[in-house]
Amino acid sequence: MLPIILDLASLRALYADGTATPLDVIEAVIERRAAWPDKAVFITEASDADLRAAARALMAQHPQPNSLPLWGIPFAAKDNIDAAGFATTAACPAFAYQPAGDATVVARLRAAGAILIGKTNLDQFATGLNGTRSPHGAPRSVFDATYVSGGSSSGSGVAVAAGFASFSLGTDTAGSGRIPAAFQNLVGIKPTPGLLPNSGVVPACRSIDCVTIFAGTVGDGVTVRRIAEGFDAADPFSRRPQWAELPVAGLRIGVLNETEREFFGNNEVETLYDTAIENARALGATIVAFDYAPFREAAALLYDGPWVAERLAAVEGFLASNAKDFDPVVRGIIEGATGKTAVQAFNGKYKLEALRRQTEATWQEVDVLLLPTSPTTYTVAEMLADPVRKNSHFGRYTNFVNLLDCAAIAVPAGFDSDDHLPAGVTLIAPAFTDEALAPLADALHRLGARGMGRDKGAVLPEASQISPAPGALIPLVAVGAHLSGMPLNGEITGAGGRLIKSCRTASDYRLYALPGTVPPKPGMIREPGFAGPGLAVEVWALSPQAFGQFVARIPAPLGVGKISLDDGSSVSGFLCEPHALTGAEEVTQHGGWRAFIASRQPVGPGPK
Amino acid sequence: MLPIILDLASLRALYADGTATPLDVIEAVIERRAAWPDKAVFITEASDADLRAAARALMAQHPQPNSLPLWGIPFAAKDNIDAAGFATTAACPAFAYQPAGDATVVARLRAAGAILIGKTNLDQFATGLNGTRSPHGAPRSVFDATYVSGGSSSGSGVAVAAGFASFSLGTDTAGSGRIPAAFQNLVGIKPTPGLLPNSGVVPACRSIDCVTIFAGTVGDGVTVRRIAEGFDAADPFSRRPQWAELPVAGLRIGVLNETEREFFGNNEVETLYDTAIENARALGATIVAFDYAPFREAAALLYDGPWVAERLAAVEGFLASNAKDFDPVVRGIIEGATGKTAVQAFNGKYKLEALRRQTEATWQEVDVLLLPTSPTTYTVAEMLADPVRKNSHFGRYTNFVNLLDCAAIAVPAGFDSDDHLPAGVTLIAPAFTDEALAPLADALHRLGARGMGRDKGAVLPEASQISPAPGALIPLVAVGAHLSGMPLNGEITGAGGRLIKSCRTASDYRLYALPGTVPPKPGMIREPGFAGPGLAVEVWALSPQAFGQFVARIPAPLGVGKISLDDGSSVSGFLCEPHALTGAEEVTQHGGWRAFIASRQPVGPGPK
Repeated sequence: MLPIILDLASLRALYADGTATPLDVIEAVIERRAAWPDKAVFITEASDADLRAAARALMAQHPQPNSLPLWGIPFAAKDNIDAAGFATTAACPAFAYQPAGDATVVARLRAAGAILIGKTNLDQFATGLNGTRSPHGAPRSVFDATYVSGGSSSGSGVAVAAGFASFSLGTDTAGSGRIPAAFQNLVGIKPTPGLLPNSGVVPACRSIDCVTIFAGTVGDGVTVRRIAEGFDAADPFSRRPQWAELPVAGLRIGVLNETEREFFGNNEVETLYDTAIENARALGATIVAFDYAPFREAAALLYDGPWVAERLAAVEGFLASNAKDFDPVVRGIIEGATGKTAVQAFNGKYKLEALRRQTEATWQEVDVLLLPTSPTTYTVAEMLADPVRKNSHFGRYTNFVNLLDCAAIAVPAGFDSDDHLPAGVTLIAPAFTDEALAPLADALHRLGARGMGRDKGAVLPEASQISPAPGALIPLVAVGAHLSGMPLNGEITGAGGRLIKSCRTASDYRLYALPGTVPPKPGMIREPGFAGPGLAVEVWALSPQAFGQFVARIPAPLGVGKISLDDGSSVSGFLCEPHALTGAEEVTQHGGWRAFIASRQPVGPGPK
Repeated sequence: MLPIILDLASLRALYADGTATPLDVIEAVIERRAAWPDKAVFITEASDADLRAAARALMAQHPQPNSLPLWGIPFAAKDNIDAAGFATTAACPAFAYQPAGDATVVARLRAAGAILIGKTNLDQFATGLNGTRSPHGAPRSVFDATYVSGGSSSGSGVAVAAGFASFSLGTDTAGSGRIPAAFQNLVGIKPTPGLLPNSGVVPACRSIDCVTIFAGTVGDGVTVRRIAEGFDAADPFSRRPQWAELPVAGLRIGVLNETEREFFGNNEVETLYDTAIENARALGATIVAFDYAPFREAAALLYDGPWVAERLAAVEGFLASNAKDFDPVVRGIIEGATGKTAVQAFNGKYKLEALRRQTEATWQEVDVLLLPTSPTTYTVAEMLADPVRKNSHFGRYTNFVNLLDCAAIAVPAGFDSDDHLPAGVTLIAPAFTDEALAPLADALHRLGARGMGRDKGAVLPEASQISPAPGALIPLVAVGAHLSGMPLNGEITGAGGRLIKSCRTASDYRLYALPGTVPPKPGMIREPGFAGPGLAVEVWALSPQAFGQFVARIPAPLGVGKISLDDGSSVSGFLCEPHALTGAEEVTQHGGWRAFIASRQPVGPGPK
């Protein structure tokens, strides 16, 4: 009855038509997790009885199906995130504590009707990208139990991919919210640092840690992110979003140039990366090869630079008293910060800021980066044999993202040629493009995916749509001197405006040449019932701020109102006060200002 | 002939009417600096010959008076800022080097026509707030040579206050661009960190150092700042400004509450601070006592926390080889960073971020802080006897400003009751309020000042006006349903709009009630030559972004163009497409939409 992957759209549909109740879903979760052979996924499970009670309580208090945004949606949380009723261990039993309450993100999701099914396994203290660094064992790939699941949010990835939870929470400092998504055929939403609060989360690198979401679709992940996000005064690194846009048209996507391609011999992943690039091109993007070197150098700072001292700062007292209780690899990494000086810390910051400046040149050339999520994967045995070096391979394209204050969405990119293991790609853009990235990531996912999680046959639900981002660009209809190539076009392009399309107005507009204007300007006016040719215009797009400043500078008798276009849409654009048309020449018959101006020019070269 | 203080307005006026030339001014500078008894002001002076040559070259290449923004304006630069032709020493002769060229700020000012008269003395490596920590001696207060001049930009303050330079450049990490202003009866412009580039500046604490400007008036300082500012890719900490506004009306100014008042026994400064508070109240501000404690704790981090390691990072190699060449107090401070760990550096950052969060509560209650610049002053002998503790007194109200990413303008607040020594106050607000702060600082200065620099009788020139800020709020004329108390007013207030004034349009506007609109809306239209009553309207102000989003939501047939008001100004406001007026009732005779609506209401209480 229930789908293998418990995506939001499917559960909501089942709830809406009465086919299933939250209790039915919880019974399935109980059954599935009991039957699953890999016992390393959870550190603490909610008991069967508690789960049933939670479902019953929800149905009693909110009987109307889907009356809460996450009504009856099961989820899992990485065990470095506090949840009332569960110890928080960070995969270090000696570190365990009973939290005073939910982490802010967990509280928000529970308030929205989601049901927590358990706390998942992780690389201890979230230090790792592979999932083997835990005393509770290594959660395995749902596609081949000899392979790692990816980490550090290993159990959270498997919990969704195996069909126990509709979504799960991870955390991501170096890539822990993305690598498991790549290895488990899932979407990984890695928000801009500070967008989701870290109150009640065990720190790894406090200044850049991010709570993340694993889900079957981008739409599901974004839905959850919107509920979990929002400023939290209790977290000093929480930020109020200042949403940033991506171009409406002419999107430029940066991909690895030949020099920077490194897949550690994994041709299968490279082929899937190339397919993803072609899919992005098919979506209309312009593909631009860029130099990954400064991003790679920033990535190297995360472990080779001073930031590892944040990991030590997070557990310094506990390490002093409990060194024997650490996973030896994790302990080795954290102890590597011992002896690093404050001068080194600041020098590391200077190096990062210099690299940030270098990467700004890339962001002038591209809007979004499209990178392999992980360049390769390994078996558990391979990883354990060479745990630091092979782990670092996974982070080659992930480690820079939080240091450079980016948003990222990891999406599945299909399976290797044996249909054995999946790979993923990640879309990355500057801070607070979280919303703007989502439709692109969703489209790329739908082109490149095979199923969701372990269900290769699943169809991505059409209902998991991305609704428009807040703060989107504002379109503006240019009629006269602001058209491309005309004297005032620079006022739009200089304000960051981008051309969306050339089109025509509805047929009931008249155009006049305003007398005495320099440069010559038209006045356009609507006369309902008039059957003219429609006027050739251009639709440009500006940020709200640039649009506001642009409108404020328009002199009388011109202004901005709504223009009806020939496709029936109504878009902000230039209008004219009627008194200015007294004595003005009507030029409607030219069909647009450009044609009128051309009609007045001498044919051929003019006088020198 | 020349005024004692060489302020920009006075020099420009003399240049404009031919009373003086740049060469005349340079001759006066040469004469004045030679006659000045305190020989500790400069570390390297431009030679008399070079100065005359520079003035002659300017007049030859740009013969038209005032044809460059700083045409023939003499200035001085602190000797930790590179200038071609001068060694940079940071007041440590063994550290001296010949720079490859001008620092970015110096190059911009020279390109604008300013003439560099020399490099000024400072607390070595900009480590200090008092001016005594230099092998070149301590520049003295222009009012009493037994007193310190303030530091670390000691010589730069004196150079302006003594009348050698129209303005000077300082640098400010802990307060070095503000304390000398307080002690020398000058304005100190402390820009938002990153607004002025630090390329070619010897670092103190690289992540928060700011180039600053000393001048006689706020207008002069802002003029210089606008020329010197602007993104510089060569400085990793350079930022592109995102101008922030202050309220147009109802400004709330935060002042010290009783608990946090500390003047180290200096009742004179306390009295002058109280006078400044009353002056701010007289300017229309609401005075709010706030808790300075979290700001004070942030201030303490600058020397007690890890940031002193930035000072060590800046000179680590040189210190290792040249410890004996350091001023002993400076050396002691910098060596205090030895042994600080990277963990301590990150813990200091966490502490700062927590305090930043705490101070955000204050910024909800006040728009601007008004604080004493320095709570007291000392003689050179007193300072030398207790150099660290007494220096720290100066920084009590300055040390937090750059750590918490604020803009500040220090202005004179008058002289003590013996008319002996001046004191100052500083206006402080969040990042990128530099422009918004300026008119307020100018007004406060004009209320509280006595002269400029050493010339207590100087009149602040009216011509040193503050022109409007680039990203200022955009005014919007509300005509109908958006008026205060009307159904759609919430669209303006919800977007952060503030009422500026109620007024009337010019007399040639007609008002119509648009048929079928919900809520009822008017259409206003201009008819040149029509002599009506003028229509009662309101002017609101919105940020450019909010204004843009507001305009984009206005439905046809309404739009935004320019409205002529009865004071002759032209302001963005509501207009209407003429076709919508067909069949509309004209209501011009009511003199405004509110009066028309009132005329339709039943008199007295309506039906329940």
